[in-house]
Parts: sequence; C-alpha cells; structure tokens
Amino acid sequence: MTGSSALFTDQYELTMVDAALADGTAERESLFEAFARRLPAGRRYGVVAGTGRLLELVQRFRFTDAELAWLAAERIVRPTTIDWLADYRFTGDIHGYREGEAYFPGSPLLTIHAGFAEGVMLETIVLSTLNADSSVASAAARMVSVALGRPIAEMGSRRTNEQAAVAAARAAYIAGFAATSNLEAGRRWGVPTMGTAAHSFTLLHDSEAEAFRAQIDTAGVGTTLLIDTYDIEQGVRTAVEVAGTGLGAVRIDSGDLPTVVAAVREQLDALGATGTKITVTSDLDEFTIAALSGAPVDSYGVGTSVVTGSGFPAAGMVYKLVARRGDDGEWVSVAKSSADKVSVGGRKNAARRLDGTRTAREELVFLGDGPGGAPEFDPGDETLRPLLVPLIAAGEVDERYLGAAGTRLAREHHAAVMEELPVEAFRLGRGEAVIPTTYR
Amino acid sequence: MTGSSALFTDQYELTMVDAALADGTAERESLFEAFARRLPAGRRYGVVAGTGRLLELVQRFRFTDAELAWLAAERIVRPTTIDWLADYRFTGDIHGYREGEAYFPGSPLLTIHAGFAEGVMLETIVLSTLNADSSVASAAARMVSVALGRPIAEMGSRRTNEQAAVAAARAAYIAGFAATSNLEAGRRWGVPTMGTAAHSFTLLHDSEAEAFRAQIDTAGVGTTLLIDTYDIEQGVRTAVEVAGTGLGAVRIDSGDLPTVVAAVREQLDALGATGTKITVTSDLDEFTIAALSGAPVDSYGVGTSVVTGSGFPAAGMVYKLVARRGDDGEWVSVAKSSADKVSVGGRKNAARRLDGTRTAREELVFLGDGPGGAPEFDPGDETLRPLLVPLIAAGEVDERYLGAAGTRLAREHHAAVMEELPVEAFRLGRGEAVIPTTYR
Repeated sequence: MTGSSALFTDQYELTMVDAALADGTAERESLFEAFARRLPAGRRYGVVAGTGRLLELVQRFRFTDAELAWLAAERIVRPTTIDWLADYRFTGDIHGYREGEAYFPGSPLLTIHAGFAEGVMLETIVLSTLNADSSVASAAARMVSVALGRPIAEMGSRRTNEQAAVAAARAAYIAGFAATSNLEAGRRWGVPTMGTAAHSFTLLHDSEAEAFRAQIDTAGVGTTLLIDTYDIEQGVRTAVEVAGTGLGAVRIDSGDLPTVVAAVREQLDALGATGTKITVTSDLDEFTIAALSGAPVDSYGVGTSVVTGSGFPAAGMVYKLVARRGDDGEWVSVAKSSADKVSVGGRKNAARRLDGTRTAREELVFLGDGPGGAPEFDPGDETLRPLLVPLIAAGEVDERYLGAAGTRLAREHHAAVMEELPVEAFRLGRGEAVIPTTYR
Repeated sequence: MTGSSALFTDQYELTMVDAALADGTAERESLFEAFARRLPAGRRYGVVAGTGRLLELVQRFRFTDAELAWLAAERIVRPTTIDWLADYRFTGDIHGYREGEAYFPGSPLLTIHAGFAEGVMLETIVLSTLNADSSVASAAARMVSVALGRPIAEMGSRRTNEQAAVAAARAAYIAGFAATSNLEAGRRWGVPTMGTAAHSFTLLHDSEAEAFRAQIDTAGVGTTLLIDTYDIEQGVRTAVEVAGTGLGAVRIDSGDLPTVVAAVREQLDALGATGTKITVTSDLDEFTIAALSGAPVDSYGVGTSVVTGSGFPAAGMVYKLVARRGDDGEWVSVAKSSADKVSVGGRKNAARRLDGTRTAREELVFLGDGPGGAPEFDPGDETLRPLLVPLIAAGEVDERYLGAAGTRLAREHHAAVMEELPVEAFRLGRGEAVIPTTYR
C-alpha cells in the first residue's frame, strides 16, 4: 500500500496545529490516549484490531506536494504551517495493547507520547482504524466461540465499503475466522481465500447438472457445490450424480437451516457421500450459528453481520489528551470535566491480573502523572500480564507487527488471550464486562 | 484515485469465470441486476449513492501484472484464465438509477448487460459501493429532512474505516449535508470542509481563555469556539470576553442539549453576542435532531450515526443474474426459485408515476425478456418520470457522473427528488415504503 494517508484527517486537527504553532504551544510534550468508555451494550469483552494497519498508515502519514498544494489553495492553514507540515513525520512513541488482545472499559489501548502538534494529527487515523477493525474483530470473536471449532469464512465484502472490506476480512481472521472471500485481503494480508460459485453460475447453464459438471471440470470433485438454486433435495441428488460420492462439500444459502441441514446430511449419507461436507451461508450471525450447534454443519460462511460488527459497527473508542507538560516542565494530568463525558486524565499503564489457573480476573490500570513518573508494576509478578507494548519508538515502527506476518502474530496472540478469559465471557446473552477495570 | 480495483472481488467470481471459460458459457450474453428486496425495517424510502465512485472503480477494474502474478501463484484460476483476465476490461452497458435518486423495494437500481464472465466479475464492487454509500445517504437524508433547513456537517470519519470515511462524507453531502470534517473528501470529491478545535486544544493551554485567544489569533473572530471543556456558562463568558460580540459561533458537545442550548442562547444574547451562532455535535442522529427542532440551534454536526447508516450499515442490495441468452439465441428470464429468497427474473425498466401536483405515487417496474425485447413505456407520458439512465455504454463511462462535478450533480438531483416525495415519506416513525412498487 502506498500513497499519503495524511488527509484521512479531520480538519480541526490541522487548524489546532495552525493555532498552536502560532502561540508556541505546538511543541508541548503531550500524552494522548485511545480508549473505550464502555463496551457495546451487552458485550462481555472487546477485541483490539487495526493496530497493524494503523502502524502502516502512520508510516505513510506524510504531506506530499499534492496534499500541501490542496491545503494551501483551500487556505485550511497559514503558509508557515504548510512549511511545517511539509517536514512532518511522527517522531514520538506509541505504546499499545497488542493487536488481537481483549479489552474492557477504560483499557488504555494506545498511548501516544509526542509534541502536541505531532500527536494531535493522528487522532482520526488512530480512531478510524481501531474503531472499525475492533468492531469487526469483537463480533467475529463471538462467532468463533459459538462455532465450537467449526471453521468460519468471512464473506461480507459486498456489505461494506470496498476498502473497509479488506480490513474487515483481516480483522475477522485475527479473531479466529479461517478464511475470506476477499481476494485483496489474501494478497495484502495473507488471509486464506475461498469461494467457488454463486446462484448465477447455475442460472447461466441450461441445467443444474451442466453447471455442476462445468465447476467440477475446472475445480475438481473436492469443490463445494451450491445446491439450493432450485430444489435442495434435487440439488443434492444431482450433485452426487455428477461429482460422485467423493464430492468435497455442498453449500446451503437459504431455508430453515437446522431442518434443511439435517435432511441434507441424511440424504448425502444415504447416497453414500458420507465424507461430503455441509457449509451454510445464509445471513448468519453469532445467534444463528449458536442455534446450529446441534446440526451436522461442517463450516459456516458469514457476511453482513461480521463486517458490520453485529449491531455495533463502531467500537466507540475515543482519543484524548490525558497529560502534558506545563511551562515549568512538570507534567499536568488533564481531562474534560463538564457534563456527561468525563475521562480519567494522566499517564496509564495496564496489566491483566490472572489467577492460579491463568484465568483473567481483573483489568488493572495504573495511574501516574506522565512519562517522567511512569506508573509501573513489578514485572516479575507472574499474576500480572503486562498489556502495553512499544509499537513505535522515536518514530520507528516495530516491523514485526506489519503486513501478513503481523496479521498472523495478532491471530496467534488473540487465540492465546481467549484461553485466559473466564468461561462466562463466551455467553451470548447480554451482560457486563466479564472482568472489572480497577484504577490504581 | 489510481491503482487496480480488480481484487476488491470475491474469489467465487473468478472461479465462475474460470469454469465458464472452460465450458464455453463465459460469453453468453447476460443481464445482471442490483436491487434491494426491501428497505431497512421501518424506513419509508432509500437513497441511491455510490454510483459515481462505482463508475471510477469499473474504469480501474483491470488486472495488472501484480494482480495476475498473485492469482497465478495462489492458483485461484487456471493459466488460460490468467491470460483472459490480462485482457479484461468491461465492454458492456450499465444503466442505473441516478445517484441521489430515491428507491423502493424491487427498484432495478442497476442493470448490467454484458457477457456472463464480464458481468459477473463486477458483483462485489457494485454491491460494496452501492450498499455502503446508500446506507449513509439514506440515513443522511432523514437527518436533513428533520433539520428543517439548518445545515448539518458530517464528522464521523473516526467511527468508520479511513477509506470508508471519505466515501461516507461524499454520500452524506449528496443527501444534503452541508460539509464534512474529512479533508480527503474535500480534496477528492469537492465536499466543503469544516472544523476548528477539539477539547485537547483547550486542555493543552493553561487556561480556556488562552486557548480561545490562540484560536482567534489564527482563525479570526468568525471561528467556532468549543465551550464545554470545563463549565459551559463560564466557557460562554470567556468566549465572548476574548472574541467580543462578533464571535462566529460556539460549539456544544455534551449535556442535555435542549436545556443547554436554550441557556447558552440566552447568555449569548445577554452578553450582546446576538449574532453568535450555536452548533451542537453530541452523538446526534435523526431522532435527537428532531428533538432539537424547537431549540435555538443554528447548525448540527453528526458523526457515528450517519456514517453507520443509523442502525442499518448496509443497504441490503443484491446482484442477480436475471436473464441470459440460450443456445438458440433467445433470451431466457432466470431467477433462483428455492425457499426464502425469491427474485423477479427478466429485464426491467422503471419509472416513477407522478400525480398532477408532481408528487410521487407509484414505483412502476416494467418487465420484459431481455435487452432485445426491451420493455418500454411512452416517453411522452409526463406522468411517468424515467428512472434508468445510461451510465456505461459499450464500456465507456458517462463522465458527467465522475469526480467532484458528478458528486454535485447527484446532490442536485437528490434535492429535486426529495421535492417529489409525499410528505409522509419524511415521518421518522416506523412505516412502510411511502409508495408501492408495481410490476407491469
């Protein structure tokens, strides 16, 4: 991915930089934090995603002549600020929860330590990536946990913006999905891709048998045949007639699934196609997947619900200035104090407290005044798993988190983290965060 | 925007092409259609958006060496199909509802006439753009209609994927929003941009007064000051002290808005700042905007709810093969017939029937067998407004619909169409489609 990411930005960030450069506050050492005040209603945990994409976008957050010319022509900022933007690159430090990590209300997901102007400019790009990708990963994780080990493929590209689709496929993969239909997600992030045929392929042909034969001729009998274009029972019979009992799988995309799946399994077995698998793909979400747990389904395909966060298409994360140095060089904790949106100011560190069975029991947030007086906890305390890791140090991105390798790493980390959560985390019904967040 | 769009595609489209090339059906003249089976629950009309973006993506739907090398390495299709893809460009015809148009269940929003392989490959890109952008535009239109002429700015970039944010700003603008915070939407699509400062700018300074002074020094007294970082009443007093009574506007981002807005208006007037406007931006949606209709608000800023479609983040459009030629050269209407997802096959044309007051009364869908026997209606009938226009003819895009000019055109068309809808369309409460769809 190439090109500048600098205009994926809300205008007010640049006008703030403009004013801060004029009055000498632009360089004030500052600490910003991204966090969620709460989980989506009824959810018991959230899953951080977007971090690897964010790091690449920060690397590309440079104003080239094209961006500068537009900003100058529109008079968004003063000419001296244009010069400053021309030299901009992020030179500060970013710590964050690892991608794939679980999070809870108040978890300090990302801390950005830099001069005010440098840090404030990342607000939109940080929130766009974390909010969108975490929304998908949080929904995907719930689907994976109720699928009981049966693989799920993401196939919702058509239900979201074409670029968001690529990121969504990646986020779902991090949260445990097995594959995606999205080819660009395969190319860019190394997510395994899948997909065989739509109803249009059957309708193109003069008969279902001809369509099945054409597909098998190129894809082999191991392919998945879509058997519900006309009549499901006839479709299954035709599929086995054409492919033989070695047919890889049949896909069902409509109907009352628990009933239909059981009937198709019985029919396949009766026809001798005992090894032929059944995949279902009809408007599934975590609730319908759970409802199919007793049915002989072998795999699932999920579209709309996963790419739209199953009811919560944005994770609700915010980006706040939590501390900055004063003229006297001392750190000052800051927070908006009016009305309904109170934040906790100050530098934070975080650890998850585990009990003797390595089960998570508490999200501990350690408060301090700023990077100078960094709040620490005993790194040798094995009951505390540290949650913040360095992602960018003095402007240099930790490259382990980038690209396909970073995506795989996030997926592995996520799987390990899910093992730690108390079993109540995986209940589908509405509830509170499964562990409390405690400020120390 | 440059670069190939060809991998924003579900794998099954390429595997269908692969199989159709092998069995000789790839060139079968086909007609695909994009439509919505229903409106989101309770909505009375939908708004088509994404068309202008789609046309640009179709122009860029070419497989360059980079895409071909990846597809070959992954063995997604056979080597002979790689050669076919290398030469691929869309050479068919696309007709569609104009961007900004209202739509109803079954409205034939887009018809794609091409060889099967050419047409099937556009399925994902068509649906991604139409579903995502129409979701935003449909929500935005409702907000505009209840804002009673007060301008609304879109500021939800942080609540959606960074690229989706640009498209969302454009879609909201088409549906009547006045501006966006998103700079890339300003550059790429000519949407007016806005934004001044966040709470972090006030917190950066040692006092609210210093922050306000810094902002006014660069932006002038016509700027908008955010007055709710600490105490709103004090914030208003400080704002007028620093800026004088010529202050452009104050922004309120928290609190019980109807009460707070009335108090701020009273305070501003008492301080002599009678021309200072009030803008509110706190988690608004169409319902809270409607609830503020009696309050002295001058403008709104809307974030999460508009970019996520206010409860319906995907518009539910599908892409179906509706007709194709048989071996005998005759057109055959086709449609999936099993279970719960029945479609109406065949070529369609559409017109909106208007009464003597130019009010929309019926969505008329004319059925036929295919392009050869195109279903027509009397173009001289002034009670029927034709809905399908040529967007791509023999592969050539109508360039009027592209870029910033196309976006403006869509916005103008949308405004005209809203004038035609019956007033019941603008009721917020749940209801049915405001006009019936009739098949002829």
